Amino acid sequence: MTSKRGRLTIPSESGYLEETKRLIELWGADGIRDSDGTKLDDEIKQLAEKVYTTYFVARNHNDFINQHRDEIQQMFLLSERVMATSDTCQIDIMTGFLSEQIEPNHDDPPNTYWEVVDRTTGELLDSASWTYDETKQQVNVTGVTPYHEYTVSFLAYVIWDPTQMYNHITNDWGDVPHDIPFDVRKKHSKQYMADFLKDWLTQNDQTDIVRFTTFFYHFTLFFNDARKEKFVDWFGYGMTVSVQALSDFEKVYGYRLRAEDFVDEGYYNSTFRVPSKRYLDYMTFIQKFVSQEARTLVDLVHDSGKEAMMFLGDNWIGTEPYGEYFSTIGLDAVVGSVGNGTTLRMISEIPSVRYTEGRFLPYFFPDVFREGNDPTVEAQENWLTARRAIMRKPVDRIGYGGYLSLANQFPDFVEYIRKVADEFREIYATIAHIEPYTSVTVGIVNAWGKLRSWQTHMVAHALWYQQTYSYLGVLEALSGQKVKVVFLSFDDVREGRLAEVDVLINAGDAGTSFSGGTHWLDAELIAKINQWVIEGGGLIGIGEPSAVSCNGRYFQLASLLGVDKELGFSLSTDKYFVQPADRHFLTENMTRYDFGEGQKNIYAIDGDTTILHYENGTVNLAVKEIGAGRSVYISGLPYCAENADLLLRSIHFAAHKEAMLKQWYSDDVNVEVHYYPKAGKSAVINNSSEERTATVFDGAGVPCRLTLAGGEIVWRESYDI
Amino acid sequence: MTSKRGRLTIPSESGYLEETKRLIELWGADGIRDSDGTKLDDEIKQLAEKVYTTYFVARNHNDFINQHRDEIQQMFLLSERVMATSDTCQIDIMTGFLSEQIEPNHDDPPNTYWEVVDRTTGELLDSASWTYDETKQQVNVTGVTPYHEYTVSFLAYVIWDPTQMYNHITNDWGDVPHDIPFDVRKKHSKQYMADFLKDWLTQNDQTDIVRFTTFFYHFTLFFNDARKEKFVDWFGYGMTVSVQALSDFEKVYGYRLRAEDFVDEGYYNSTFRVPSKRYLDYMTFIQKFVSQEARTLVDLVHDSGKEAMMFLGDNWIGTEPYGEYFSTIGLDAVVGSVGNGTTLRMISEIPSVRYTEGRFLPYFFPDVFREGNDPTVEAQENWLTARRAIMRKPVDRIGYGGYLSLANQFPDFVEYIRKVADEFREIYATIAHIEPYTSVTVGIVNAWGKLRSWQTHMVAHALWYQQTYSYLGVLEALSGQKVKVVFLSFDDVREGRLAEVDVLINAGDAGTSFSGGTHWLDAELIAKINQWVIEGGGLIGIGEPSAVSCNGRYFQLASLLGVDKELGFSLSTDKYFVQPADRHFLTENMTRYDFGEGQKNIYAIDGDTTILHYENGTVNLAVKEIGAGRSVYISGLPYCAENADLLLRSIHFAAHKEAMLKQWYSDDVNVEVHYYPKAGKSAVINNSSEERTATVFDGAGVPCRLTLAGGEIVWRESYDI
Repeated sequence: MTSKRGRLTIPSESGYLEETKRLIELWGADGIRDSDGTKLDDEIKQLAEKVYTTYFVARNHNDFINQHRDEIQQMFLLSERVMATSDTCQIDIMTGFLSEQIEPNHDDPPNTYWEVVDRTTGELLDSASWTYDETKQQVNVTGVTPYHEYTVSFLAYVIWDPTQMYNHITNDWGDVPHDIPFDVRKKHSKQYMADFLKDWLTQNDQTDIVRFTTFFYHFTLFFNDARKEKFVDWFGYGMTVSVQALSDFEKVYGYRLRAEDFVDEGYYNSTFRVPSKRYLDYMTFIQKFVSQEARTLVDLVHDSGKEAMMFLGDNWIGTEPYGEYFSTIGLDAVVGSVGNGTTLRMISEIPSVRYTEGRFLPYFFPDVFREGNDPTVEAQENWLTARRAIMRKPVDRIGYGGYLSLANQFPDFVEYIRKVADEFREIYATIAHIEPYTSVTVGIVNAWGKLRSWQTHMVAHALWYQQTYSYLGVLEALSGQKVKVVFLSFDDVREGRLAEVDVLINAGDAGTSFSGGTHWLDAELIAKINQWVIEGGGLIGIGEPSAVSCNGRYFQLASLLGVDKELGFSLSTDKYFVQPADRHFLTENMTRYDFGEGQKNIYAIDGDTTILHYENGTVNLAVKEIGAGRSVYISGLPYCAENADLLLRSIHFAAHKEAMLKQWYSDDVNVEVHYYPKAGKSAVINNSSEERTATVFDGAGVPCRLTLAGGEIVWRESYDI
Repeated sequence: MTSKRGRLTIPSESGYLEETKRLIELWGADGIRDSDGTKLDDEIKQLAEKVYTTYFVARNHNDFINQHRDEIQQMFLLSERVMATSDTCQIDIMTGFLSEQIEPNHDDPPNTYWEVVDRTTGELLDSASWTYDETKQQVNVTGVTPYHEYTVSFLAYVIWDPTQMYNHITNDWGDVPHDIPFDVRKKHSKQYMADFLKDWLTQNDQTDIVRFTTFFYHFTLFFNDARKEKFVDWFGYGMTVSVQALSDFEKVYGYRLRAEDFVDEGYYNSTFRVPSKRYLDYMTFIQKFVSQEARTLVDLVHDSGKEAMMFLGDNWIGTEPYGEYFSTIGLDAVVGSVGNGTTLRMISEIPSVRYTEGRFLPYFFPDVFREGNDPTVEAQENWLTARRAIMRKPVDRIGYGGYLSLANQFPDFVEYIRKVADEFREIYATIAHIEPYTSVTVGIVNAWGKLRSWQTHMVAHALWYQQTYSYLGVLEALSGQKVKVVFLSFDDVREGRLAEVDVLINAGDAGTSFSGGTHWLDAELIAKINQWVIEGGGLIGIGEPSAVSCNGRYFQLASLLGVDKELGFSLSTDKYFVQPADRHFLTENMTRYDFGEGQKNIYAIDGDTTILHYENGTVNLAVKEIGAGRSVYISGLPYCAENADLLLRSIHFAAHKEAMLKQWYSDDVNVEVHYYPKAGKSAVINNSSEERTATVFDGAGVPCRLTLAGGEIVWRESYDI
């Protein structure tokens, strides 16, 4: 019998003792937390075994930082492009930026650190060719080429913490002071950070878990002069910079970074850019620093007998849970927001912490918890989506956030959360620490590899982008499937790690880090993959895999994939292969096709390619046998149940494991089966909210008909054959 | 009163004297011609003032060429890509080629002229690393890198003339001998060509016009081993090559061309490739040779008192009617096939001939002239489409081809052709040699410039391609509009020729010769255009104008155009500008939008861009004011009446000539107005086959309502204000 208590953190708020007590009882919560805008009374803190308290390291101390304003965090920013119409050029560097957030750094000499670049040629101008007027915040350049465009890359103080700024502006907080973030690389800040935490720990003896939100550097986020978001990159290291950081970096790496290494033509090293060696060096440099400094804080927490938990977001930059240095921080736990299966796995797979926690949706905020709306709908969708991933690798705890008093006004919701909590505890009790059965090992290859495990194709955390959803579907499908997933960099492939996988997936738009861009100019890489496939490996390309125009091909793996993209250069070559095959293993369950944004002008290079879907002059789905190997091409794979099945079948086909598909499998795409050998159990889950009747196959492929209520999970005694 | 006779060439055939006589009379034909598969009797030849006889220069003489088989025409071909799986590699060079057409050249030493290339790296292999087995037609390469791909570029004889091959295979001609083309660069062929023509001229005294079909080298066209077209490029110089040509070239240019200069990674220098300096040199070299040799034939024709006419097609390579050497050939006339307005202008604008002739559709062949089909429909569509262009610059004659006896079975068709012939003569009599009124001068800029006047975005003559129709619409619209059109190369722009135009158009897919590809890495070019627009010029970009990823932009003219294309690198930057303007001068007549293939992910770079059409997350139509200039962006412009009006309005807007739009203009997009100042006349034409009532504006902008029958042309006395 599974315990009806534990593994659940809920929020509470001041003056809400009795109802909190009731809900703790009803839901079986053992943890209680504060939230943005809420504080816990001492009495409430005594209700739960674990009290979480949010802790900000590098902001919320304006009294301190105002005395050391040269320690405010900084970043390199790129001005607007200004077209010269004579041989001089004036650039107002702050145009388009929010002066409440950004303040040009006038403390370090501009001509030493800033750059004026001719963006028409890409050339850096001699620093003697321009002057800076502090009063006007204007750069005056002489000797320019008329009708070229010029930019200034300038160092600026970030005088408003981005998350507080976002909340402040969104919620119209009025005269609440702007939190000024400080840089703990600097002497006073470093000292202050430690001293304050020491004090705080002694003053917060009721806190069991210090919830760091988060450490030192926020992901890149700045606003425009209309107080709206101008740039957001959840992975951006932009706000970690300072003259001291540049100098420290040079001491370690022996070379000096430029402003351009940060502004990067205006792309600011978006995670979609193939990272340069210099940027990778810098990321490593920051990770080492962040890990080392975070360690000192974690040690203080531990010394006080408390646990250290990190929130995966906000000021998480440099922690890199999948990076080389994360384990040295010594954290007890990581908590993160669960938007779907992918983000669940992003949290639950984090190595070297004792436990992970997922904060589920909806957040108890008035936007959802309003009269006339049923918050249970979002809760159920969130739970069923994430549950697929939990079945593969559970987080150790779940939780919610926001105003408990709001949630409590919706009895159906309260009851649903009771069921979710019980179901989670049951799943956890059954499968935690038990390796689920997997039929195939899949490698995702991109320029980032392991560092961006379950983090591909993301701009801002969990936000929808038209250019990404057709790729994000791949991870989302995989997050709840009976396959082992490893994330490989191109260097991993070069170093022979293809041996670890049955199937390799390359998915993304041409030129991006996820497709691979210029990595595909490396003949050695191509040859490695050629050999591996011909000797029996399985390759799946999605979107513009291996795309870079070179040597007569756009897809550098076109010979393997059997398709290429017509750019206009080979229109003279007749394309005869357009007829889709009638039936195929991959498409047995497809009733309609959705390739998302898909592609245009994809053609089969010869008759050896088997086309499975062709529409409007383009191949959307094709397979090929080459040597002992197989490949699959898919033009796009947004997440839906049928596409998940299509991907699972593609994987089994590419791996020559068609026979294993119908083991621990259901013929209804909404129903999935997970098997846990060491537990002697399997779970059949209905991912939809409607009743489904499915034919479910056990490990011997023996079918049985099963009817599941909407969202139901059915446990069965199961054993290897 | 216009003459009811003349300016018309019709086909006839053996044994069809009386009916030919009747139709000559009815239609007012003054020229008579043979066609593929028809011969004219002597009596028929006496019916018309002008007798055309088709003449083949470099084929149809197998008795000769079989005695000099080393003078058969040649080309460089690229084998299939073969992936090595060990350190040796065998390549069957003829795989995929039609052995009836292609025969490897075993006369010149393969290791001297052929190339084996590692297509995974692009490296040329040492010729000592491979041997060729003539019997097996196989190249054996040693010391290769396993899992790289290799190709052989080999020199081959073209033993079947492509046009005869096409007709032969299409019409199943059975044991009709295959015409073997010979290369008049070679000694015997050159002599034979002249000798035979001399003889022929004396034996064909009834011929008035020698219709060269055509000269020496066919455009690139080869078939696959299933007797179907494998590759076609109407502009390709592939079949002009020989060891002697390479050697002659080296003597002139001081460097040696490689096989790769011809096979070009498998693209064979498609007209969509940005031409290299080496390829341009070679084209010039061939043009000089072709012009010089054609001149000797034309001289012989003239010496015999006959006219020399060239068919624009088939073996036209190297003549280049818009090239530097064409005038030196001394031709009297050019005849070409008219598929639409663009091809009409391609013929009618050819400089330095006394007259041009358009062969109209349908060809009198059984595919159209069959029971149950009404050939008048195609005839009317062809005529109304081409007539727009005739109103701007008429050909001097029109004509038809095929079997006259077939056409004569369709009385409605016979009557329609009578009307067309009369209408053409009336138009010609009224406007020939009179400059029509133009409001704006438009320059089309691409990598080819004048050489490809009215020849952009074409693969095979007049065939529809999914990748081109959205661009071909631009020329088609322009072909019948009140604008002057000039074709500029990027060098022309560099040399200051923007001064000649009011509006510059750049249209095409990224990387292609028509968009410009790497030309857009030239800062000087960009600055020239920047300056010109800012000082008042008008820029229109269509599709992926100025596209090459560099310096933070994809469209290098993004600052002018106000839009750029999101490749995935700038997803982190918020895109706020998505709201189309309510009303605009450009779109006043639009009832529905058709951008053809359009684009994806086009975004407005800032609020200075006025969006006119936004759908599915992409800008399809936008305008911008920058400095004193203006720009328009259109994602694609397939030809239709509304799009033609949209383009005309875009041009007038970009040129700051909105006020001139409604002069010699109609508010019905199907009705157009042309004004001929020196004739004191204007013509109002209904391009549709339905009756239209339009408001027609004269040169003072004074409107008048006019109803025109389907296809009607109304002439009006008109004068400048």
